[in-house]
Amino acid sequence: MQDTVHIDTLIEARWIIPVDPQQSILNHHAIAINQGKIIGIQPINNAHSRFKAREIIALNNHALIPGLINLHTHAAMILMRGLANDLPLMEWLNKHIWPTESRHVNTSFVLDGTRLACAEMLRGGITCFNDMYFFPEASAQAVLDSGMRASLGMIAIDFPTAYANDADDYLAKGMALRDRLYSEPLLSFCFAPHAPYTVSDKTLTNILTYAEQLEVPIHIHLHETLDEINLSIESHGVRPIERMHQLGLLSPGLIAVHMVHLTDNEIRLIKQHGCHTVHCPSSNLKLASGFAPVTSLLDNNINVGLGTDSAASNNRLDMFEEMRLAALLAKASTNQADALPAHQALEMATINNARALGIDEITGTLASGKAADITAIDFSDLHLSPCYDPVSHLVYAAGREQVSHVWVNGKMLLEDKKLTTLDSTQLHNRAAYWEECIKSTA
Amino acid sequence: MQDTVHIDTLIEARWIIPVDPQQSILNHHAIAINQGKIIGIQPINNAHSRFKAREIIALNNHALIPGLINLHTHAAMILMRGLANDLPLMEWLNKHIWPTESRHVNTSFVLDGTRLACAEMLRGGITCFNDMYFFPEASAQAVLDSGMRASLGMIAIDFPTAYANDADDYLAKGMALRDRLYSEPLLSFCFAPHAPYTVSDKTLTNILTYAEQLEVPIHIHLHETLDEINLSIESHGVRPIERMHQLGLLSPGLIAVHMVHLTDNEIRLIKQHGCHTVHCPSSNLKLASGFAPVTSLLDNNINVGLGTDSAASNNRLDMFEEMRLAALLAKASTNQADALPAHQALEMATINNARALGIDEITGTLASGKAADITAIDFSDLHLSPCYDPVSHLVYAAGREQVSHVWVNGKMLLEDKKLTTLDSTQLHNRAAYWEECIKSTA
Repeated sequence: MQDTVHIDTLIEARWIIPVDPQQSILNHHAIAINQGKIIGIQPINNAHSRFKAREIIALNNHALIPGLINLHTHAAMILMRGLANDLPLMEWLNKHIWPTESRHVNTSFVLDGTRLACAEMLRGGITCFNDMYFFPEASAQAVLDSGMRASLGMIAIDFPTAYANDADDYLAKGMALRDRLYSEPLLSFCFAPHAPYTVSDKTLTNILTYAEQLEVPIHIHLHETLDEINLSIESHGVRPIERMHQLGLLSPGLIAVHMVHLTDNEIRLIKQHGCHTVHCPSSNLKLASGFAPVTSLLDNNINVGLGTDSAASNNRLDMFEEMRLAALLAKASTNQADALPAHQALEMATINNARALGIDEITGTLASGKAADITAIDFSDLHLSPCYDPVSHLVYAAGREQVSHVWVNGKMLLEDKKLTTLDSTQLHNRAAYWEECIKSTA
Repeated sequence: MQDTVHIDTLIEARWIIPVDPQQSILNHHAIAINQGKIIGIQPINNAHSRFKAREIIALNNHALIPGLINLHTHAAMILMRGLANDLPLMEWLNKHIWPTESRHVNTSFVLDGTRLACAEMLRGGITCFNDMYFFPEASAQAVLDSGMRASLGMIAIDFPTAYANDADDYLAKGMALRDRLYSEPLLSFCFAPHAPYTVSDKTLTNILTYAEQLEVPIHIHLHETLDEINLSIESHGVRPIERMHQLGLLSPGLIAVHMVHLTDNEIRLIKQHGCHTVHCPSSNLKLASGFAPVTSLLDNNINVGLGTDSAASNNRLDMFEEMRLAALLAKASTNQADALPAHQALEMATINNARALGIDEITGTLASGKAADITAIDFSDLHLSPCYDPVSHLVYAAGREQVSHVWVNGKMLLEDKKLTTLDSTQLHNRAAYWEECIKSTA
């Protein structure tokens, strides 16, 4: 007989969906957590004989899934949510987003915006996000306040902003931040050159050198719109992916966001080099960028993750919406109702995203040895009744409003739909403050 | 000075969005309701001097919109929600949906299922739906229990089911139900021949005769899939719309559902005859039917409404999801980020749907003289913060979980997110009962 093991927390659940290759659905199982890590997943009865927990949480109508990961966002832009909509892309950027950014974005804006975004993401079952924005030191502070996991972008653009003067300045600031926060267990970093049309060859080459030295991924918008591609042909004589290829950026260290317009040859190149891709369906539709060929990428065994993009072009930070939309769009785009089934959408929102960030040893599935990054969904809501298959419901019927509990690294950050680390009233007040500031100059 | 008017209810709101041609957004206004009808919409202060209400409801962080209308569903199929997914259409129907229906569907199934669907719709701000299913007498009972408004389908199919033996039997039963419930103020009726491939020319011709006599609309699936069109060419030598044209069914009395695959000539025909169309974006994607040419229809001034289809092919009865999806898909499909703006999506979910059902004198907008069919959305949720434009938020950021109150004909059916007419525990128990029944034979 085994000895009883003393642990911090035991979570019992109606279903545990670990997101493993067998697509398991475990009935009436419990997750044992100690010191932030999952140390066992067992049938509830077994778990009680094996483990003595300081805290037992019974979620008898719930499914536990790996914490969702948002593989592409600009968190602080939430303060511009709905500022302007239903406009052509360049008018939206030139007349609304960029002027607002140049007037208002500073560390205080980014701190308040990222905190609000963290609150929205946690309430929606998201435990980790991959960010790209100015003043990442403020984003880092918000993430640390929230208790979430995040990958922060060391952003670079070849023009000056309030944050930095030139490409070298951006990179120096990003790397200094990484040096300072290197030991934070929940933070990781990416280089984040904004996009092919905003970053020069020289800067991209420098970034590649640093990225290889530091073993850090590169997070970039790529092939989002036809305009981007045409501009590249005009300026560089080749499409952006070919340019990235010539510069040596195509590698398993590349996280290529959007990837809407792709030739077969480009898909081959991406596959050959083991690049990771990020599908952002809401944003691609809302900005009229197009329909990404997600099933072609998946059929080629290219890693496809999922992201919300910013709340300015979505206008939610809601991975349930993105899972559902990805699964639905794939079916109509391919004329195959069996394309991108529910479990695959769940993989895209969890383990695929962890793999892209290089943190799949730590998070992205529920398994012994991994961090306790866990999201609980309450199936007692009538909206999920009846239930023949909890995985189908998670993707096609559930919404983030059914998320009841969230743990990151074993710490409960959402308890019965209440945030435990962030103050909702303060978030409201700060959002109202920025709303007034932005309205006054709009 | 005007006399004070005694009324039943005054609802104060932060915003009232009447869905009028001016796309008004009224700040700090109130709606006066008496005997089920809206009798005034005025600035809050004015309303207090003008009206003396027995009940005053202050919704200071809320938007009031016309109750949403779901223009196409099969409500009772909610009991098969998620029964089978990610399957090719014919396998889904032949191996799962149709066998389950033939084993289980009876009046009790339809009563329980429709009640559950009414609960879901009310909680999502839907005040009226257009239904097509077997045993409409049971649907009618559920609707009357719920207090909702509905249009019930007098269904017809040219093969026998547990409900009826042949086309004449279906029609006789439907019309008898209509005769019995003719005086119910919240019920209306449509003829509901299922689809071109399940209803003969003879039955369609009979239905047309009855529909013209009784002045009742005809609600039919039309041009949903390429298979349907090919089958029609094989069987009838023409595409379904041309067949409907030859039979004389194209008219302002026709509610044509899906309309995914359309030639320019078919769009011209539909326009010429003033037919109404129903866009069901989630269902069209999930069943891989395709992308309906919604902006072409709208550009031709054809009335386009919105529906969820059934929860078996959606898997939600959520008009917020359909509004968002319609607006997003239109942009990517046309490569125009300004296609189908937010207010137009709201029109599709309200007044356009009322117009299709012939009840636009009664409901579909907020205006004096219309029924008090009203939905309140709580904007104090952090997910809607900040807010620059409440209409944009309703379509792109809000979810049905922010719906707080719903009135139909002046009666509050949802109060602070709680159902007032339906018993959630009973709904749960009945859903669990049917889940077990269906699982036991699956």
